[in-house]
Amino acid sequence: MMSLTINECAKWLGSRDRFLIISHSRPDGDALGSSAGLCQGLRDNGKIAYTLFNPEATGRYKEYTEPYIAPEDYKADYIIAVDLADTGIIQVNAKKYEAAVDLCIDHHMSNKHYARSELLLSDRASCGEIIFYVLRELEASISPFTAKALYMALATDTGCFRYKNTTAVTHRAAADLIEAGAPSGDLNRDFFMLKTRSRLLLEALMLQSLEFFMDGEAVMAVVTLDMMNRAGVTEEDMDDIAVISGQIRGTETSITLRQINDAKWKVSVRTGVYANANLICAEFGGGGHGMAAGGSIEGDINTAKEIIKAAVKKHWKSQ
Amino acid sequence: MMSLTINECAKWLGSRDRFLIISHSRPDGDALGSSAGLCQGLRDNGKIAYTLFNPEATGRYKEYTEPYIAPEDYKADYIIAVDLADTGIIQVNAKKYEAAVDLCIDHHMSNKHYARSELLLSDRASCGEIIFYVLRELEASISPFTAKALYMALATDTGCFRYKNTTAVTHRAAADLIEAGAPSGDLNRDFFMLKTRSRLLLEALMLQSLEFFMDGEAVMAVVTLDMMNRAGVTEEDMDDIAVISGQIRGTETSITLRQINDAKWKVSVRTGVYANANLICAEFGGGGHGMAAGGSIEGDINTAKEIIKAAVKKHWKSQ
Repeated sequence: MMSLTINECAKWLGSRDRFLIISHSRPDGDALGSSAGLCQGLRDNGKIAYTLFNPEATGRYKEYTEPYIAPEDYKADYIIAVDLADTGIIQVNAKKYEAAVDLCIDHHMSNKHYARSELLLSDRASCGEIIFYVLRELEASISPFTAKALYMALATDTGCFRYKNTTAVTHRAAADLIEAGAPSGDLNRDFFMLKTRSRLLLEALMLQSLEFFMDGEAVMAVVTLDMMNRAGVTEEDMDDIAVISGQIRGTETSITLRQINDAKWKVSVRTGVYANANLICAEFGGGGHGMAAGGSIEGDINTAKEIIKAAVKKHWKSQ
Repeated sequence: MMSLTINECAKWLGSRDRFLIISHSRPDGDALGSSAGLCQGLRDNGKIAYTLFNPEATGRYKEYTEPYIAPEDYKADYIIAVDLADTGIIQVNAKKYEAAVDLCIDHHMSNKHYARSELLLSDRASCGEIIFYVLRELEASISPFTAKALYMALATDTGCFRYKNTTAVTHRAAADLIEAGAPSGDLNRDFFMLKTRSRLLLEALMLQSLEFFMDGEAVMAVVTLDMMNRAGVTEEDMDDIAVISGQIRGTETSITLRQINDAKWKVSVRTGVYANANLICAEFGGGGHGMAAGGSIEGDINTAKEIIKAAVKKHWKSQ
C-alpha cells in the first residue's frame, strides 16, 4: 500500500483516466456527495469518470447519483473508493472490487488500508473536504455542481458545522465551495431545517413517550409500529431518529427503542461522560463505540425496558 | 455622520481610550457576543473598556456579560453601540445615550445613522463578524475569550451557519476564531443541539396542535397558557418558538398563536414565496417584514383562528 499526500493524490489522478468510483453500503451524504463531487471534478478536468450505481441510495440524493451512474458496458481502468473505511461495508453490488481498489480517499481512523494507494486524513471532518483540497490541486477550477456536491458532503458529515469534528480547515473549505457556487442557503434549508409533517408528528409522539430514570440523568424514548402508522412515516423519515432522545439538556445517557415486530426491539444507546454505551449494549448481545452503540432485544416492551435499565445501572460509571 | 471602513474603524479605536459599549433591548447572542468580544478585544489592546449592564440579558449569557459590566462610577470618554440599528430599540437603561453615540458598528440595512461615526456593513451575517475583522487590524492578537464571544455572536445570528445570510466571509471568520481558541464544538452543542426537557415537552404539545389549511400549504400552531403550565417552561424556553411551525416541508406560510391571557393572543407569521407576512398581519393591526411579521388579536381561540385564516386567504398570492 502506497500512502499519498493531497498533492500526490492530485498527480495520481491527473496522470490517469477512465475511473469508476465506489463507496460504502447504506450511503450517507458524505459517501454520495464525495462520489458526485469527485466524478464531476474529474470530468471538469477532461477525464472520463463514472460512479457505480448504489442500490441503497435514497431518493433525496437523486441529483447527486443519476448523472454519474456508469453504463453497464463501461470499462474502467482505475477503481476509486471514497469514504469507505473497510471492504466489509463496501456497497452491496461492489463485492467483486474488494481486492481491486486502486485508490482510496477517506477520513476514517479505522481505515483498513485495503487499496493499492490511499489518501487517508483522519483529522478531516468529511471525505468531501479532502476531495475538495485534492481537486483544488488539479488544472480545472471547481465547477458549481462539483462545489454543491462537496458542500453537501461536508455539511451532512458535520451536522452543518455543529459537530466537534468541524475544524478551521472545514470552514475554509466551505468558504471556497460557496465562492465556487455551492447554493449553501437553499441546501441547508432542505437538509437541516425542513422536516416532513409525518416526521414531526412521530417526534411529538416520541417526546410524549419519554421516560426518565437514574435520577433524571438517563432517558428512554420508544417508537412503536403503532406510532409509526399513526404518524404515517416512511423509512426515510426514520433517519437519525436517535437524536430525539439525545438532545435533552442534563441527561448523560439516552436510549431509543424502536419496535421491529410484536416481540423484537432495536436499541440505540448514546452516552456522555459517565457511561460506556458499548458495555451497556454488550449486556444484551450488542455493541459499537464508547459513546454510541446498539443492539436488539426480544420480548415485550416491559421486558426490553427492564433489560436496558439494568444494563445502564450496571455500567453507569464505566467510562 | 462619518462613514468608516474596517481599517478606519480600527484606527478610530486605536487612537482613543475609555470606552462604554451599549446595544439593543431584548439582547440576543449577537448583541451580547459582539459587546463582550469588542470589550475584551479592546482590553487585549491595553484599552479601558466596559459594557453598560443590560437588565434584559438572560442567564445563559452570564459569562459574556458579568466580566465586563461598568462600575457605577465609570466615566467613559467614548460611547460605542454594537448591533443597534435604531435608537428606538436602545437597551432600556441607555436612553440618555440616544444622541451621544460616538461610534456605531452594525450590520442592519435598516440602520438609522444615529452615531457620529459608523461602520455599517449590511452584507455581513452578524455584527460579531464585523468586529472580528476590525480587531484583526489592531495591534494585539485575538485572545481565546474574545474569539469565543465573537464566535458565539456569529454562530447565533446564522443559526450555526445554516441561514442564507452565511457567506464565504462568515466561514473564514469562523475558521480564524476557531484557530484563536473559540471552543466551537462545546458551544455549538450548548446553543444548537441541547434543549430543556420542558421545552421539548412543549414542542410535543405544539406539534399535536398543528392545524393545516390552504390545501395543506399553511399551518397554524397554538401555545396556550395551559400547555406552558403542563410543560413547565420558563420564559427562556420560549425563545424562537415560531420555528416549530416554520420547519414543515411543503408549507408556504406558518402561524404561531401564543396565548397571553384569557382573551388575548400574540401572533407570529412566517411566509415563503406566495404570501406577504406584513400584509397578513396588517389585517389585525400588526406588521413587520415581508417574510416575518407579528401582531396580537383579542378574543377567544376560535375568533383568533378565523381572523388569521381570513387574512392569510386574502393575501395568499400577495408577494
